[in-house]
Amino acid sequence: MDTKIVECVPNISEGRNKETVKKCAEAVSSVPGVTLLNCTSDSDHNRSVLTFIGSPEGVVEAAVALCRTASRLIDLTKHKGEHPRMGAVDVIPFIPVKNVTMDEAVEISRNVGKRIFEEAGIPVYLYENSASAGHRRNLADVRRGQFEGLKEKTLLPDWQPDFGTGFHKTAGISIVGAREFLIAFNINLSTSDVDIAKKIAKVIRQSGGGLSCVKALGIMLHNRNIAQVSINMTDYKVTPLYRVVELVRAEARRWGVTVTGTELIGLSPMKALIDAAEYYLQLEDFNYSAQVFENHLL
Amino acid sequence: MDTKIVECVPNISEGRNKETVKKCAEAVSSVPGVTLLNCTSDSDHNRSVLTFIGSPEGVVEAAVALCRTASRLIDLTKHKGEHPRMGAVDVIPFIPVKNVTMDEAVEISRNVGKRIFEEAGIPVYLYENSASAGHRRNLADVRRGQFEGLKEKTLLPDWQPDFGTGFHKTAGISIVGAREFLIAFNINLSTSDVDIAKKIAKVIRQSGGGLSCVKALGIMLHNRNIAQVSINMTDYKVTPLYRVVELVRAEARRWGVTVTGTELIGLSPMKALIDAAEYYLQLEDFNYSAQVFENHLL
Repeated sequence: MDTKIVECVPNISEGRNKETVKKCAEAVSSVPGVTLLNCTSDSDHNRSVLTFIGSPEGVVEAAVALCRTASRLIDLTKHKGEHPRMGAVDVIPFIPVKNVTMDEAVEISRNVGKRIFEEAGIPVYLYENSASAGHRRNLADVRRGQFEGLKEKTLLPDWQPDFGTGFHKTAGISIVGAREFLIAFNINLSTSDVDIAKKIAKVIRQSGGGLSCVKALGIMLHNRNIAQVSINMTDYKVTPLYRVVELVRAEARRWGVTVTGTELIGLSPMKALIDAAEYYLQLEDFNYSAQVFENHLL
Repeated sequence: MDTKIVECVPNISEGRNKETVKKCAEAVSSVPGVTLLNCTSDSDHNRSVLTFIGSPEGVVEAAVALCRTASRLIDLTKHKGEHPRMGAVDVIPFIPVKNVTMDEAVEISRNVGKRIFEEAGIPVYLYENSASAGHRRNLADVRRGQFEGLKEKTLLPDWQPDFGTGFHKTAGISIVGAREFLIAFNINLSTSDVDIAKKIAKVIRQSGGGLSCVKALGIMLHNRNIAQVSINMTDYKVTPLYRVVELVRAEARRWGVTVTGTELIGLSPMKALIDAAEYYLQLEDFNYSAQVFENHLL
């Protein structure tokens, strides 16, 4: 079958008000040709992650509809949460899944960026593979300063939005782009000392000289009174899940704490999880394509 | 889609002569409507496992064709191997995969049994869900005495074949039935003392008071000069893979040996492997159906 499938994983800056999250989810799921796969809210992060797939046309409509709804319901001037954010719909990544190239996904992200400004009045930065300049590729760099720093940031010549000018007074700026599958993965520690999570995050992430394609932050989960290493894995084929978990377990021992559990936010490709099984079960000569039954049905 | 899919995983008593294995595989793959997914040979076991899927009609034709070919090429009077066996095509299980009930799979196995005797002259025992009596359900009981004991066994009133009488002089008896997905899984030890593998096998298997739905044998891999615990898991939803591996690791420590690796023979359902990832990664609140991306494409 040559059906084109694109995935979109927008993060919205609301993880506490269920009614608002529900309306945002409905804005997506009511678009024909789009299937909402998952919606995960985190009240400490005060953030929700929506995952949907659909045709290239469908995902464009759904992303724009989401921004229209979110800009009405989410007010960043009153938003507090553990996770850095710049917009009501903070980041809108498009991932090519089936019969779609990265170039096509970039094209989709540009269409969406243009329409978000035109139809919801929210200026847009393009990032990752859609970035208009090298210094705008990395999400953390684009988001630096957060919502509160937008007034200053958007005055800098290097940080003019790609679509629109300035920023939306309550919805900020949305960051839109095409990228590879990203795994959002959190590791909970047996401590309420957030400094330990921060120290671990610093040594495991790529920017700290740690693992390639790993971004990590140490944060506090106030609801559960535990510290967490919050991780984005931008390429699980380069750095597999198990290596991150084992490295965090090793670094945690140094501080006398243990990993009490982990959380997968949204979706993971089956291979990322089966790679972990292959490692821990010590499978020899394992052939992923041939030996996983479902690969013959896909 | 309401296409019916049945899986068939015949084990043939040849794992050394590549030409013979190839001809057997071709007998299967040349049948229209059938896809050969996997063929794994083991020279210590002197046994190969073929895995194919197809329509109910297709898998019947392929299984009968395999028996015709194997009965010409495999002579059990000259066969030696670590693994117990009773027939040239030793065991022919049918597994309902998609839009097929277990009752339909039983019906398929009976058709195949009848035709194997009529067209290849090989008598057949039905086993598992197809068994004609309670004492014939368990494969190990049906196969007890192996090829060499067939003359005696087939004279017993309780052990008349379900199709045909006596046994084929060189191809023995084939054991045919419908069952759930079975995972064939071997665990290699850092020792050449087969008694250790046998002791571990004895305590982990259900018949020894160990884990439910686990069958295990301790065998010697002469080629690699290591002992192996050879395992069949008849229901990974009852006893997951990781529990077997962790129990073998624990029992191995008692003898001062370690697990050097494991082998998956043939195929595994994706869920059996992802269950292991969930355990080892300590995933909390993991939703298999929703969070594994490919489940939305199947």
